This record gives sequence, C-alpha cells and structure tokens, in this order.
Amino acid sequence: MGGSSLVKVFKFDNFRSGVRFVVKVGKLADGANHHPEVKLSWGKVEISLTTHEQLGLTQKDFNLAKEIERIQL
Amino acid sequence: MGGSSLVKVFKFDNFRSGVRFVVKVGKLADGANHHPEVKLSWGKVEISLTTHEQLGLTQKDFNLAKEIERIQL
Repeated sequence: MGGSSLVKVFKFDNFRSGVRFVVKVGKLADGANHHPEVKLSWGKVEISLTTHEQLGLTQKDFNLAKEIERIQL
Repeated sequence: MGGSSLVKVFKFDNFRSGVRFVVKVGKLADGANHHPEVKLSWGKVEISLTTHEQLGLTQKDFNLAKEIERIQL
C-alpha cells in the first residue's frame, strides 16, 4: 500500500535500555541492508519501517519487523 | 520560552555511525539525568532537547547540548 509504514512502540524502564535496544536493531538493520526510522525517548523506542524505493511496504519490511520483534527486551 | 526545543541534526555516512553517536548521547544524557528525544534514520540523527517540567528550555538543555556537540563524530 503506497505510503504505508509498519510502526511499533517498545517500552523500557529507562533511557539506557532503549539505547541498547536501538543498538540491536541497528545490527539487524545492517544485516538486512534495510534501515528503519527510530524515535528514542526516555522509556520508549518507536520503530517505523517502509521501503522508500517502493513508496510503501515490501517483504523487506515484514522480514525486518519479525527480526526486531524477536529481540530479547 | 514555553514549548521551545533545541534541535540539531547530525549527519553520518551510514546507519551504524548514527547508532554509535546515539550510544554516546545516551551516556551523556544518563550522566546529566536529562534525556533528549532522538530521531535516527540512515545517515542522520536529530537531537531535540527541552525541559518538560518547565514546558520549555532551561540551563539543563543548554548544558547537555554543549556536551553533545563535543562528541567526536
């Protein structure tokens, strides 16, 4: 669907745990050669995935979303 | 000034370098017990600082902004 994103918010008890999560997301993203937009604030990380070249969602987004959801919080 | 933020965008050559920068920002933020909002995407990190309890900017924001600007990119 054009312009769509997969968005999920992950909650944490402090800022540091959010940063650690972002580091893990970064490794998965580099491994997949596909990179989300990440919003980090105290206790919260929002991950948005889309495929810019397609102006919407592709299998790459779903695959990386699944990998991110498997990260141990 | 009510509702104001300090916002700065830092540019990088890849996602990983942006993540590394966010890790350094996180350490400074924990050290200052004051935490920014961070937007990370490929090649770019946007840092926003404000003091929620004051609905605007305080010395805490300016101090942390200075520390973040001193990070070696």
